[in-house]
Amino acid sequence: MADLQKDALAYHQGGKIAIAPKTSLESFTDLSLAYSPGVAYPCKEIEAHPLEAYNLTSKGNLVAVISNGTAVLGLGDIGALASKPVMEGKSVLFKKFANIDSFDLEIDEKDPKKLISIIKALAPTFGGINLEDIKAPECFEIEQTLIDELDIPIMHDDQHGTAIVSSAALINACKIVGKKIEELRVVIIGAGASAISCGKMYQNLGVKHIAMFDSKGLINTKRKDLSPQKQGFILDEDYSSYQEALKGADVLLGLSKGNILTQEDIKVMAKDPLIFTLSNPNPEIAPELIRKVRDDAIIATGRSDYPNQINNVLAFPFIFRGALDVRARKITEGMKKSAVLALANLAQKEVPQELCTLYGRELKFGRDYIIPMPFDKRLLHELSSAVAKTAQEEGVAQI
Amino acid sequence: MADLQKDALAYHQGGKIAIAPKTSLESFTDLSLAYSPGVAYPCKEIEAHPLEAYNLTSKGNLVAVISNGTAVLGLGDIGALASKPVMEGKSVLFKKFANIDSFDLEIDEKDPKKLISIIKALAPTFGGINLEDIKAPECFEIEQTLIDELDIPIMHDDQHGTAIVSSAALINACKIVGKKIEELRVVIIGAGASAISCGKMYQNLGVKHIAMFDSKGLINTKRKDLSPQKQGFILDEDYSSYQEALKGADVLLGLSKGNILTQEDIKVMAKDPLIFTLSNPNPEIAPELIRKVRDDAIIATGRSDYPNQINNVLAFPFIFRGALDVRARKITEGMKKSAVLALANLAQKEVPQELCTLYGRELKFGRDYIIPMPFDKRLLHELSSAVAKTAQEEGVAQI
Repeated sequence: MADLQKDALAYHQGGKIAIAPKTSLESFTDLSLAYSPGVAYPCKEIEAHPLEAYNLTSKGNLVAVISNGTAVLGLGDIGALASKPVMEGKSVLFKKFANIDSFDLEIDEKDPKKLISIIKALAPTFGGINLEDIKAPECFEIEQTLIDELDIPIMHDDQHGTAIVSSAALINACKIVGKKIEELRVVIIGAGASAISCGKMYQNLGVKHIAMFDSKGLINTKRKDLSPQKQGFILDEDYSSYQEALKGADVLLGLSKGNILTQEDIKVMAKDPLIFTLSNPNPEIAPELIRKVRDDAIIATGRSDYPNQINNVLAFPFIFRGALDVRARKITEGMKKSAVLALANLAQKEVPQELCTLYGRELKFGRDYIIPMPFDKRLLHELSSAVAKTAQEEGVAQI
Repeated sequence: MADLQKDALAYHQGGKIAIAPKTSLESFTDLSLAYSPGVAYPCKEIEAHPLEAYNLTSKGNLVAVISNGTAVLGLGDIGALASKPVMEGKSVLFKKFANIDSFDLEIDEKDPKKLISIIKALAPTFGGINLEDIKAPECFEIEQTLIDELDIPIMHDDQHGTAIVSSAALINACKIVGKKIEELRVVIIGAGASAISCGKMYQNLGVKHIAMFDSKGLINTKRKDLSPQKQGFILDEDYSSYQEALKGADVLLGLSKGNILTQEDIKVMAKDPLIFTLSNPNPEIAPELIRKVRDDAIIATGRSDYPNQINNVLAFPFIFRGALDVRARKITEGMKKSAVLALANLAQKEVPQELCTLYGRELKFGRDYIIPMPFDKRLLHELSSAVAKTAQEEGVAQI
């Protein structure tokens, strides 16, 4: 850990992103084109035909990563400024994985209404907006209002990234052990932004039985304190604890603060349990401990040092790539679902040898490889084209 | 003009700026440093020590170019979106001339109070903010409030850029023709943001007599309709027109809409008149016409196709470079004045042959070369170091 700290601080010296001119600027002719007087022509063209901004400026390939720093990684509300390394990192990932120019903005505003109006005012600059690390429940109103009121794609990745990637993992894990999605008994520990979105996506895929637990216990018909989001998961049953709900459960999705489960809790799950312990950096229970009592489990985590990493980077770069490619006005549920299916499908294909070499292990569809790896170059085409196609079919594409 | 239009539109295809990662991102080790889990360490470091954001993120070399598109070039209020090519161009100039990473934000908000609160919320992201093309009189309140309330350098370039560069030109022109700054009779046509700022800088350099004209005529003791900014130029004299004021005047500074003067107007000026016709793209009167009636004039314009171009790019990249280099909390009047003097001084030095070759003419201090050329590589060091030194002397530097 001390080494990681030292390496990470050294890696971050001077920051992670720079601006690069895309055009030549070596002569006074260049200068007269890039700036006054030549620049007046693209301005006038855009004033007359606003969509020309996609051709005559960087807008068409530009995504903002916007946070107010209220729910940063496992760190919580550390504020806008301190969240900057995360947001810069996200921008770099957009560029690296999908060649999207992305710029991070850390906005010092916690009030949802004010934050919404700031982001709306900023929208002309960008072709899309990736919201990041904004705390629940504010994030729901912020994302939905921006989707409704702006005509560029908006996505709060904390909600949808994990939902998309873990859904692909769920589909593939079911396929491997022969479980039917519709018959799964799912326990979700945690009811934050990501858990809510995962639950909704699982329902969307056909899951019927979800027992979701927040800090006050099971979300069921007895509860009178539920937010509109949580009301989508009211169960007409009762469990005094998630330990009780785990008896005979097929799936555990952990999105808690980590280290909350014991081997005893796991032992009681159904045969071939799917155990997604996604709390970071500490899973709800370490994979080694699970393995000792359940050698029939398929295990996924949020960490890169175990197999089956549920990593958002498998989704957000390619969803925005697909959306930008067809100038989608929004990212629909259908587009997200098509990303899930493309991701699940890709994991079932044969993996290029060079990727196995990069990761230093055999990658073959099965219990230890249920989702693609981040550096798989096929992700870009497979996911982006699926997302773009759905945008066109649903009529939200502008080209 | 048709060719310039065609070339300019072709030049702008796809926009002018991209984002470039500064760090390696080729392996999962890189990924774990750039993003989770490694990125948590710089976040925590900044949370504990906010100034570390200058070391551990891109903030320290990052300047926002921010406009609401209300006073764009000679185009007027074309809106945020249509102003984007200008702002991208400005960002590219920052990078090209001073290696400053600069990102453009077009903000769809005209109300000054709301725009101020948006920009304040955005400030954590940046090391400095260049305001651009915001209309008067709102720009005065916006700039001053942000200077007062933020701890990073803020400058509205429309106000100060032309003031700084034309002041350097004024100093050198006076030197060439042997006029004393204190004795100059100056006529300023136009009373917008730039004209006000030029006038203030000239006063700051020692000019005593300025006759400033707005759309209603001379700014003098008879006027009861003057903004606080214009009140700094109340003259206790009367001229029925700028034509009358030009009789015997030493300096004409034109910041109007162009094409408003005749040869007759110019003929009546004092010996060796300094005629700065800065309206763009059409000067108040064409230099060829001036030359026919006044071969003793020193002429400057805003255009690159005449000698003595008063070009903001001679100032803003280097002022921000100097300010960022010492983490100045603001850009003071003293820092701007030191840029004026460094710019004037540089023009008096011998010009490297390669620069003469680039511009295809001899560049030697005199009537046709009173200020440096934009591609003069010495600007970076000469101006930035002067600005940084003054920041340190005035106690606004943080390193």
